[in-house]
Amino acid sequence: MIANTPKVPYYAVIFTSILTNDTAGYEAMADLMTTEAKKIDGFLGIESARNTVGITVSYWRDLAAIHQWKEQLAHQLAQKQGKLRWYERYKVRITHVERDYEFVKIN
Amino acid sequence: MIANTPKVPYYAVIFTSILTNDTAGYEAMADLMTTEAKKIDGFLGIESARNTVGITVSYWRDLAAIHQWKEQLAHQLAQKQGKLRWYERYKVRITHVERDYEFVKIN
Repeated sequence: MIANTPKVPYYAVIFTSILTNDTAGYEAMADLMTTEAKKIDGFLGIESARNTVGITVSYWRDLAAIHQWKEQLAHQLAQKQGKLRWYERYKVRITHVERDYEFVKIN
Repeated sequence: MIANTPKVPYYAVIFTSILTNDTAGYEAMADLMTTEAKKIDGFLGIESARNTVGITVSYWRDLAAIHQWKEQLAHQLAQKQGKLRWYERYKVRITHVERDYEFVKIN
């Protein structure tokens, strides 16, 4: 659920979106996108949550892997459908992860 | 809801968390943290969503602003309470936003 990413540096793509009311097929597409992303060499993990706004953060080894993901055929089709039907608005941010740390509760 | 951030470059802090069952007081603390973050010079915006996992992405002008936020007294207290009670696990990633783009549906 929290992506088990390797040591920094790596990349994160922050995808924030607001959906329209036409959400038929959206979940299936989102699941398929995750399945397809995992096939790409350089994919490191993904985290996702949605309330009013949806945030999906995917992690990548380098910009080449992100580029490959963006150009993936299934992804291209999903982007087209997304703009036509599912997304009211979205923002994509390509970021370089410089530092990370975590906390795990000792029960 | 989708943060209206300025032109790149800027910074994003990705905070991904899983809560314990002891969530009393959590929402109030989260709201307070947003209020306090907004007071910091260099704060650019915040986005948040939670299902099984919670993702909060805050945006900042530079590392100095992020440092100021981390050291903020209310934030320090929240971090302590968070580790004691609310968080089962979390991961923080400090990232440099290199590129962004957005889509807005024309209705």
